[in-house]
Amino acid sequence: MNTWQIQENRWDITQYPKYETLFSLSNGYMGVRGSFEEGGVDSGHDGFYLNGFYETYPLSYGETFPGYPSASQAMVNLPNPKKLMIEIDGQAFSLQKNAPSEFERILDMKTALLYRKAECRMSGGKSIRIESERFVSSVRENLCCMRFKITADKNCRIKLASGYDLKSRNLSKEDDPRIGVEFSGNPLTELITSRKGNTISLKGKIRHSGLDFSSLISHKLESTEKLQETALDDGDFSGLTWETELEAGESLTLYKYIWYRRDDTARPEELDSLLKKSYETLKQEHSDWWSDAWKNMDICIDGDEKMQQGIRFNMFHLLQSVGKDGRTNIAAKGMTGEGYEGHYFWDTEIYMIPFFTFTNPAVARKLLEYRYGILDTAKNRAKEMGHARGALFPWRTISGPECSSYFPAGTAQYHISSDVAHAVKVYWEGTGDREFLLNQGLELLVETNRLWADMAVFDTDEEHYAIQNVTGPDEYTALVDNNFYTNRMIKDQLGFFADILNDFGKLADSDPSRITLNNTLNRLEVEENELTLWDDIYSRIYLPYDERKGITPQDDRFLQKPVWDIENTPRSRFPLLMHYHPLVLYRYQVCKQPDVVLAQFLLSGSFSMEQKIRDYEYYEKITTHDSSLSPCIYGCMASEIGRLKESYDYYVKTARTDLDDFHGNVKDGVHAANMAGSWIGLTYGFARMRHWDGMIRFSPLLPEAWHSYSFRIHCGSSLLSVKVVPGETEYTVLVGEGLTIEHYGKEYSVDSVPRRIAIPVS
Amino acid sequence: MNTWQIQENRWDITQYPKYETLFSLSNGYMGVRGSFEEGGVDSGHDGFYLNGFYETYPLSYGETFPGYPSASQAMVNLPNPKKLMIEIDGQAFSLQKNAPSEFERILDMKTALLYRKAECRMSGGKSIRIESERFVSSVRENLCCMRFKITADKNCRIKLASGYDLKSRNLSKEDDPRIGVEFSGNPLTELITSRKGNTISLKGKIRHSGLDFSSLISHKLESTEKLQETALDDGDFSGLTWETELEAGESLTLYKYIWYRRDDTARPEELDSLLKKSYETLKQEHSDWWSDAWKNMDICIDGDEKMQQGIRFNMFHLLQSVGKDGRTNIAAKGMTGEGYEGHYFWDTEIYMIPFFTFTNPAVARKLLEYRYGILDTAKNRAKEMGHARGALFPWRTISGPECSSYFPAGTAQYHISSDVAHAVKVYWEGTGDREFLLNQGLELLVETNRLWADMAVFDTDEEHYAIQNVTGPDEYTALVDNNFYTNRMIKDQLGFFADILNDFGKLADSDPSRITLNNTLNRLEVEENELTLWDDIYSRIYLPYDERKGITPQDDRFLQKPVWDIENTPRSRFPLLMHYHPLVLYRYQVCKQPDVVLAQFLLSGSFSMEQKIRDYEYYEKITTHDSSLSPCIYGCMASEIGRLKESYDYYVKTARTDLDDFHGNVKDGVHAANMAGSWIGLTYGFARMRHWDGMIRFSPLLPEAWHSYSFRIHCGSSLLSVKVVPGETEYTVLVGEGLTIEHYGKEYSVDSVPRRIAIPVS
Repeated sequence: MNTWQIQENRWDITQYPKYETLFSLSNGYMGVRGSFEEGGVDSGHDGFYLNGFYETYPLSYGETFPGYPSASQAMVNLPNPKKLMIEIDGQAFSLQKNAPSEFERILDMKTALLYRKAECRMSGGKSIRIESERFVSSVRENLCCMRFKITADKNCRIKLASGYDLKSRNLSKEDDPRIGVEFSGNPLTELITSRKGNTISLKGKIRHSGLDFSSLISHKLESTEKLQETALDDGDFSGLTWETELEAGESLTLYKYIWYRRDDTARPEELDSLLKKSYETLKQEHSDWWSDAWKNMDICIDGDEKMQQGIRFNMFHLLQSVGKDGRTNIAAKGMTGEGYEGHYFWDTEIYMIPFFTFTNPAVARKLLEYRYGILDTAKNRAKEMGHARGALFPWRTISGPECSSYFPAGTAQYHISSDVAHAVKVYWEGTGDREFLLNQGLELLVETNRLWADMAVFDTDEEHYAIQNVTGPDEYTALVDNNFYTNRMIKDQLGFFADILNDFGKLADSDPSRITLNNTLNRLEVEENELTLWDDIYSRIYLPYDERKGITPQDDRFLQKPVWDIENTPRSRFPLLMHYHPLVLYRYQVCKQPDVVLAQFLLSGSFSMEQKIRDYEYYEKITTHDSSLSPCIYGCMASEIGRLKESYDYYVKTARTDLDDFHGNVKDGVHAANMAGSWIGLTYGFARMRHWDGMIRFSPLLPEAWHSYSFRIHCGSSLLSVKVVPGETEYTVLVGEGLTIEHYGKEYSVDSVPRRIAIPVS
Repeated sequence: MNTWQIQENRWDITQYPKYETLFSLSNGYMGVRGSFEEGGVDSGHDGFYLNGFYETYPLSYGETFPGYPSASQAMVNLPNPKKLMIEIDGQAFSLQKNAPSEFERILDMKTALLYRKAECRMSGGKSIRIESERFVSSVRENLCCMRFKITADKNCRIKLASGYDLKSRNLSKEDDPRIGVEFSGNPLTELITSRKGNTISLKGKIRHSGLDFSSLISHKLESTEKLQETALDDGDFSGLTWETELEAGESLTLYKYIWYRRDDTARPEELDSLLKKSYETLKQEHSDWWSDAWKNMDICIDGDEKMQQGIRFNMFHLLQSVGKDGRTNIAAKGMTGEGYEGHYFWDTEIYMIPFFTFTNPAVARKLLEYRYGILDTAKNRAKEMGHARGALFPWRTISGPECSSYFPAGTAQYHISSDVAHAVKVYWEGTGDREFLLNQGLELLVETNRLWADMAVFDTDEEHYAIQNVTGPDEYTALVDNNFYTNRMIKDQLGFFADILNDFGKLADSDPSRITLNNTLNRLEVEENELTLWDDIYSRIYLPYDERKGITPQDDRFLQKPVWDIENTPRSRFPLLMHYHPLVLYRYQVCKQPDVVLAQFLLSGSFSMEQKIRDYEYYEKITTHDSSLSPCIYGCMASEIGRLKESYDYYVKTARTDLDDFHGNVKDGVHAANMAGSWIGLTYGFARMRHWDGMIRFSPLLPEAWHSYSFRIHCGSSLLSVKVVPGETEYTVLVGEGLTIEHYGKEYSVDSVPRRIAIPVS
């Protein structure tokens, strides 16, 4: 098995929608689903997306209340530019009609190239061979390149059309009510197409969001025969057609250069000038970028090719899907499908930020800058939700406004604001980026601190602060008081803030960091009594605990509810949310995903091992893992408490979730948070990586099934390789200065010379 | 002031929508808004409704979950049959165009007739006088009769058209998003009109519900001049026109007989045969019915004409709006408007059932039979909501299915099932109707008992039963554990059930009631272990109580929340639900309406006076009365604890809520529950009527502003008059056998001879 590749070796039309997702290519700006250029497969959905590029549409409610979002946003499926139409001897060609005798597709993750080869027997005994290749340029965000070659074994007449499919539409609710969106009218409007030589251009507008887009396609053809070129622009399609007679064994090759922009500024000159470079040159620079990227992030698993392939596939999709410009983020499905409408969730802060912080810190910073960019919208939302001050981040959004229409499992998930604060902390601990921390980072902390100060209710009887009527990460319980996760994360965020003030406040007045700190606090008009209140909430926020059971309750009332009988619930009734009314689920102790356990993972240093074990055991029994965000965290906590076998079992569930389509819905897009979770499961999980006080710490375990594993992470400006082999861990600083790290609780200096340190026998 | 009438003496077009509601006429089968026959007022909404006759329409959700109702129902505005069109000398006539110099409308509540007189000066110096009268027959549910007379003071040409307005539509969301419904397509379909002589007939179907309707209009004309009659059927209107020249002082009079059915069986012969009776005869039998009705229910308030008028108006609308056939109920707005879509709520059981039980027990029984009729639907709903057994009644419905789209303040209001049980108890205590109690009544109790048995969770630590994740009557708090109202009402229902078993179980085996009881229990397969469980829940259901504060908490967490600052909330921000997101309201101690206090009113014998005083004082401060169901209950509890002045202040708010348009939305329909509340406010409130153990009890108070007041109530088969004068109460049995009643805690025999009993000096 080539673990750098995903191969499809057999034509099976039923697998087509799945591979459309798996073979999606993206560069964080544009995303192209892995459909065939010539389409023609009924079950397919040709998706072409720009990150953060959306239509708005009205949300409807049976009963509407103040503060309900009146509109949502959905990533638009734009006119598909990779579209080809093929006719052989006057007959439309597709693999659905002309099933191939030989078929192969390869996604090469090392170079981020997608290949196809198909040999089809036509009526009349002729054979047609298709060879195609494409990539979405990693170094030029607006560029996608394709090569398409068609060869006949006998004389035949070929007609090839290339251009924009103007019929591209988002999936509608009629297609799938859980996925689709009902726009009022075609979101694509004011479409203008034109042609200049081999170049087709397209401009358009999104009907209600008013966003402009523009695009170009330039063509180059290689053919031994003379081609007859015609323009084709019939409202459904805009492009060019070429016709020719191919002799036996002759080929026609089309190079197609696609340029797409989230504004109206695409100019032919720009693309023309770029195309002075050859296809091969553009491909090389793209693949070089990916080689470099893999040097920074690759994980090697020796002894388990399926896991090896899985983790690479996950990292590949994460890096290609993530917005890298500070204006866009990473959607729950990347840009691989229309599930969750291209929305950004807390997935970014809790799952993706650790991955990017330690493999690509520049991207991690951009993700945080995105949050900073929507801070004003979040402050307005807090006001709308009755808060005097502070920022309440949206549960789901593209450009900032709350797009969640079911508030008990949407807006009520206030924890997203502390998740943002937590991401600031993780990024700071991983990078030591003072400039970010003391400017945007501090502002994110101050405004979310202010939200908590407004939310916290002091109970004079109990002399503690309560946080009421929120929903924690577990969506099978909603609108509770004192959700442990939320309260504990608030405490941590306030503690982190106090530490920053303390650490940088100690510096000399003239120290640039001290000056930046003071400037930010002054600019935000942070007052002394605010600081006092935040400290008080830090000290006295209520953390529910059941002394008698020795269990951390998920919220004030959780442990009083009856326990859902998971064992005797038929498998067909999972995921529960698809089969039971929310009120039914809310009445039971049953978890979609970790809540207490997630807090204990994220803040593992704050809990005793005994407590973690008890809570893990308690909650694992009542968790259905109906969320794909669940198993990776349980896997990490299994490692944390030394249960390597259990941890491994969870790991296996996360590493190939999408490749093996565990949830049966990969056609709607990959599960990006789970993909990050599989990275977390190896680093934080098996290697038990932790970070605090500016130091990175490991207590690695090696799963029995593996000979060894290794991963690379950025620590400050250094790149550290960690290789876990039986009985030992080898630490090597590959780039940058030497580091002090902790291994099983002891500090060690490591540098460019590999240092092997023994794993204590437990 | 004639307190039997509502008079409009001045033409003020801005008041037109309000009077359309106030002057609605109904007989519980059909309802006609008080619009002018000739319409022509832009702000008007000509409503014609049949009780329980609805269109279904899909409910849409941003996110949909299992068990969400997929469709709702809405009372349809049917083709308006009272429609006239008038032309004078070729000009269309309306009061909006031709403002009257004299104008009067009178709703006579004693006879249930609506009169109009208008004198309009026309261009050219002519005057036109309109006189009209109409009634919806109280003795023939399908019949509405109109007389319309037009007189000119100078020669003129009159053209009169009469028939169906086929453009009738429900208000749409574009008109008012809070009221309107978006049907997909015109709900009126398959309309077929025809004519035979003076009779127009109409048949049609409701598009999605598939319900049929049919109707006839028969006309009789009186004119000194010859009339030219023409058919007019242009798709917008179907009817007849008459043209004539009127000489000065001459009149044209039209009698119009409308026949409307909730099926397709309207036959001209039926109406023809009825019309052998004269208009005056039909009017007389109608008014006689109302005279009888008033003998059973009239309330006299001596010394306060406005209150006197108000309480009559309220009783008038209740009696005319209520469905009397066991298949229909009484909508939140009666049949006076489209607010709440013609849905039936708990309003019936908690507010209307006491009124009807004591003024018109036969109607009360029909309302309970309606609930019994939807019991199977409620049993299915319980299954859908995850319950093994039992009946969960819908929060809002017409024909039975849950029509609430916001479950936290809809389906989660499980208390409706105990409200139904409570209504069975009130009806039984008022009527002693064993036949109903031991058949349908018992079945309603058994199936709701079964719901509670499934809902109740035994807490082994506390050794009590908890009811989790429900919403009580106060909609400003949702999804709570151990809502006091709900738990206390469950306890009461289980106690009531046990009493029935005990009382009737003592009878001899051969006693018919004992036999009926046993038959019903056998038919329902009530098992011994069920009875044991119900008894156990009765004994050990948790009733939250705050010992330290001495307050009954609304739910487990209510008293821990911060108190909303009602005083400093601007008046413009009320009702709060129109200005704050539910999550904001849920975070505070703030009540839309009584919850604990409602339980203490309904079950007043179960609480100490001290407790009632403390809870009243506590909750009154945090109640906004944003629900029109609130003030009447607070008024009753103010009386209960001896605060007559406060009680009177609340009473004044309830008695004229609609007449004086306190909420500014009477155009959308009357507030029927509040109307019943004003009756409750006088009987249960001032007269402190209570009933238990088969006896009726009073401890009357007399508001200072009044000289005296009296009311009439049915007790078993007797009709009792209660008149409260300064220092004394006069009890008289007007019909039937003598009674034993309780007056200020002492028993007295009363009979047809008025008996005056002193009111103890407090």
